[in-house]
Amino acid sequence: MSDRRVTASVLIIGNEILSGRTQDLNLQYIAKHLNTRGVVVAEAHVIPDIRDVIVSSVNSARSRHDYVLTTGGIGPTHDDITAECIAAAFELPLVVDETIEKRIRSRHAPPDIMENRLRMARIPKGARLIDNLTGGPPGFSIENVYVMAGIPGVLQAMLPTIEFQGGSTIRSCSVTAYMGESEISRELSTIQEQYGSTIDLGSYPFNRNGRFGTTLVMRGTDTEELCNALEDVKQAIRRRGQEPGEVSYDWEQN
Amino acid sequence: MSDRRVTASVLIIGNEILSGRTQDLNLQYIAKHLNTRGVVVAEAHVIPDIRDVIVSSVNSARSRHDYVLTTGGIGPTHDDITAECIAAAFELPLVVDETIEKRIRSRHAPPDIMENRLRMARIPKGARLIDNLTGGPPGFSIENVYVMAGIPGVLQAMLPTIEFQGGSTIRSCSVTAYMGESEISRELSTIQEQYGSTIDLGSYPFNRNGRFGTTLVMRGTDTEELCNALEDVKQAIRRRGQEPGEVSYDWEQN
Repeated sequence: MSDRRVTASVLIIGNEILSGRTQDLNLQYIAKHLNTRGVVVAEAHVIPDIRDVIVSSVNSARSRHDYVLTTGGIGPTHDDITAECIAAAFELPLVVDETIEKRIRSRHAPPDIMENRLRMARIPKGARLIDNLTGGPPGFSIENVYVMAGIPGVLQAMLPTIEFQGGSTIRSCSVTAYMGESEISRELSTIQEQYGSTIDLGSYPFNRNGRFGTTLVMRGTDTEELCNALEDVKQAIRRRGQEPGEVSYDWEQN
Repeated sequence: MSDRRVTASVLIIGNEILSGRTQDLNLQYIAKHLNTRGVVVAEAHVIPDIRDVIVSSVNSARSRHDYVLTTGGIGPTHDDITAECIAAAFELPLVVDETIEKRIRSRHAPPDIMENRLRMARIPKGARLIDNLTGGPPGFSIENVYVMAGIPGVLQAMLPTIEFQGGSTIRSCSVTAYMGESEISRELSTIQEQYGSTIDLGSYPFNRNGRFGTTLVMRGTDTEELCNALEDVKQAIRRRGQEPGEVSYDWEQN
């Protein structure tokens, strides 16, 4: 594992997200998955099914990040234009991939329906396939750009098949305090300054069945530092006259 | 109502969304709300709590869209840097607003906690307030940039208080077809071409209790055109040997 920060940009492609018709669920899934692989999602963009926007967004993101992941727009209909946009972004021709074609043809359909389905066999020339564990048409990748489906069940059947070369795994731990953010914000600020960029300390207010509180979350790559910061935060809670609440870690405790 | 397309960019500010800790729910709420006001969400960006990123994202978005709406980063803690970033984007000083200060001071707190809370009274000089129907600290706006809370309950207590000068209201209607997208994609493509840019026709596959189908959604400003397109889609479903399923409209039917 390297200490270099490895970053990703996520492009969520689809008018249905921007119109509010569909609630995006993919960003959270991708972010959590990439965290476990040592890849930080540095930004995400929700963009419409418009060719110029997709092409320029892909080209901007791929030059600035180690990985670009796209979701949406690889189905069989007229508004599924992601494959041709990725080809345009790389100035490559869009070609029919024989492996995908074979997989699509293995499910019988009348000729006109088959022709529509075969839209999903078109990938930029030279792209590699991303397996689809549902058995449906695969996604594809080219250089550092990974093109996947927008339907959460299908995205989740593609993403785990990709091998990411991440940096150190980002871990997190948290503790709840039954007090408002402002009651502990100065202490948090001091702790954040003390740890600098090795720890990212966030505070998130909540209201559980009418009881208000704040979850204090530490994120970083060094679990020893995280445990130290957690102790400091617990001490700060005690100094504010409360006992620390529930503690959780996203790595195994011995 | 004007025929001009009025657009918005949504900036979702917060490490907790990019880390996957928190599922964003604000984009969908904002998009639906703006649709009813005749404002189209043209893009959305999820960005981290990093000053330079926030400043440049705000400046880019406000020059390209009629409205910019931001969520997140206006609480009392060290990672709440949105207000100072908006001030920097407009090259304005950050000042304490007396109205907000008064509201914050009306809830008693020890001096050190009060000082933390008063961070939320700082706005760019000359900004207008966005009321907060929860009774908590308001948001603010400056020129075409509207700065709101990230907690969904608070955002939803701010957004309805804003008056938007929108274009024509965007309406939608839909019909379900119990067939795959590829079975009807060619017909949809023809219908989309026929209506051109007046109608945006989308298709969204679903699996309800093991029964597969596709929801066909038409969006546009002219309800007569939408009804015509809906009839065309229903005819297309019948030509494919199925009866159209459930029909829905987001405007009242006489």
